[in-house]
Amino acid sequence: MNEQERQQIYNRAKNWVLEAGERIRTKMDQPIVIETKSSPNDLVTELDQETEQFFIERIRTQYPDHQVLGEEGFGDEINHVQGTVWIVDPIDGTMNFVHQKQHFAISVGIYKDGVGEIGLIYDVMKDCLYHAKRGEGAYKNDEKLPLLPEERKLEQSIIGLNHFWSIDNKLVHKEGLQSLIRKARGTRSYGSAALEFAFVAEGIVDAYVTMQLSPWDIAAGVILVQEVGGITTQADGEPITLLDKNSIITCNPAIHQEIIDEHIELKT
Amino acid sequence: MNEQERQQIYNRAKNWVLEAGERIRTKMDQPIVIETKSSPNDLVTELDQETEQFFIERIRTQYPDHQVLGEEGFGDEINHVQGTVWIVDPIDGTMNFVHQKQHFAISVGIYKDGVGEIGLIYDVMKDCLYHAKRGEGAYKNDEKLPLLPEERKLEQSIIGLNHFWSIDNKLVHKEGLQSLIRKARGTRSYGSAALEFAFVAEGIVDAYVTMQLSPWDIAAGVILVQEVGGITTQADGEPITLLDKNSIITCNPAIHQEIIDEHIELKT
Repeated sequence: MNEQERQQIYNRAKNWVLEAGERIRTKMDQPIVIETKSSPNDLVTELDQETEQFFIERIRTQYPDHQVLGEEGFGDEINHVQGTVWIVDPIDGTMNFVHQKQHFAISVGIYKDGVGEIGLIYDVMKDCLYHAKRGEGAYKNDEKLPLLPEERKLEQSIIGLNHFWSIDNKLVHKEGLQSLIRKARGTRSYGSAALEFAFVAEGIVDAYVTMQLSPWDIAAGVILVQEVGGITTQADGEPITLLDKNSIITCNPAIHQEIIDEHIELKT
Repeated sequence: MNEQERQQIYNRAKNWVLEAGERIRTKMDQPIVIETKSSPNDLVTELDQETEQFFIERIRTQYPDHQVLGEEGFGDEINHVQGTVWIVDPIDGTMNFVHQKQHFAISVGIYKDGVGEIGLIYDVMKDCLYHAKRGEGAYKNDEKLPLLPEERKLEQSIIGLNHFWSIDNKLVHKEGLQSLIRKARGTRSYGSAALEFAFVAEGIVDAYVTMQLSPWDIAAGVILVQEVGGITTQADGEPITLLDKNSIITCNPAIHQEIIDEHIELKT
């Protein structure tokens, strides 16, 4: 992706994200139809669907040769990462959207031949845009985010963690995460994977660990975290794969190996 | 406390809270000396101490007959609740203050003869003030908060919970909280008790459950939650006591008894 092309895509993507956020804010107080997907707690609303369609229409009109992968399924069926791929979560943190009317984000990651080029995470109600282009650093609105501190002990770290992974579950042994809860300085749970990635990039959470995320949950966040010197892998340290579900650890590199070695034992 | 007197105290308290918040915001980016108190993760900074002194000087000058109880210990040694008592947490969520420079609050509760009259919780970086006077409802900035919904199932509730209480600990049996995590729609952990009370009052978290809080963590929140029809008790359902540490459940009354009966078994 050449520089000029990337800048143009970035400008358009950023405008669309801000416009989509504005539309969500305006429609926020209208009655919302809430449905469930895979489970009673896997929520979806008309606004998730409308927002995804908003992106897909614009991308297809402007870039007919790009592929689009979206959470709500209005995009393409993607089985390869060649060319330019947009990965869109129209509302990440739908439970927060429904119950809190805040603490949710639009997430857009743009990849060329499998390489993350542009990441955008927009905290809609805070009007706060995290954005990054590969090799150019990450920003929170107009402020450039500093590189993550090189020295960081786990004992002084704040960890983002869904409560679910520290009790009996199908994917990971709970004991390691229980000892992580004891060892870390503190644990937090915010209910939006995209925002937890953004918080890692901002350096206000030192690691976010979770056992199952879809491509749209992570596509933008991975790029943001990388641009501040952070690292994202599967929870056992393996590289992530762009089109599948992944277990995830995204964090300051200073604590990456220790969390994997001492605190994560996946069930196989 | 007569109406005129209460209004005057409320006006002053509100101005002081906003002024203290402004001072914190200005000093935020200066280097901060961090010390620890009871444990390596029990943090305190000069700004906690300065902010408490800011309140105490003003209260003592303006209301020499009032008592003040503050987290940092610059207030009075209080052994009765007669008369007017100010209960002040200058920075609730000090770990967030230190690590995140956001997501912390000033909390001020004002009691007359043990009855909560005025509650103020100020999210300093968001410039968002939750405030209430007994019998007059609760507000988020200028917006009156609605009464909590009368119907609320636990299966559709979001619960604020420190991860610590769902693993082995000295105060509560973990099994009940683990089943609460499974039963509820979602769990969150924000790292500031005062803000979690405010979120319950706002109706964006349906319950906040924790096993040990000090008077300054809860004094304002209890009043806010009461003013939207919520309930706060010890975690076994007993009334809270104003001058001691308490276990706490603060929530929508619709789910109060079920959480206590089915999910909380204190260790005695």
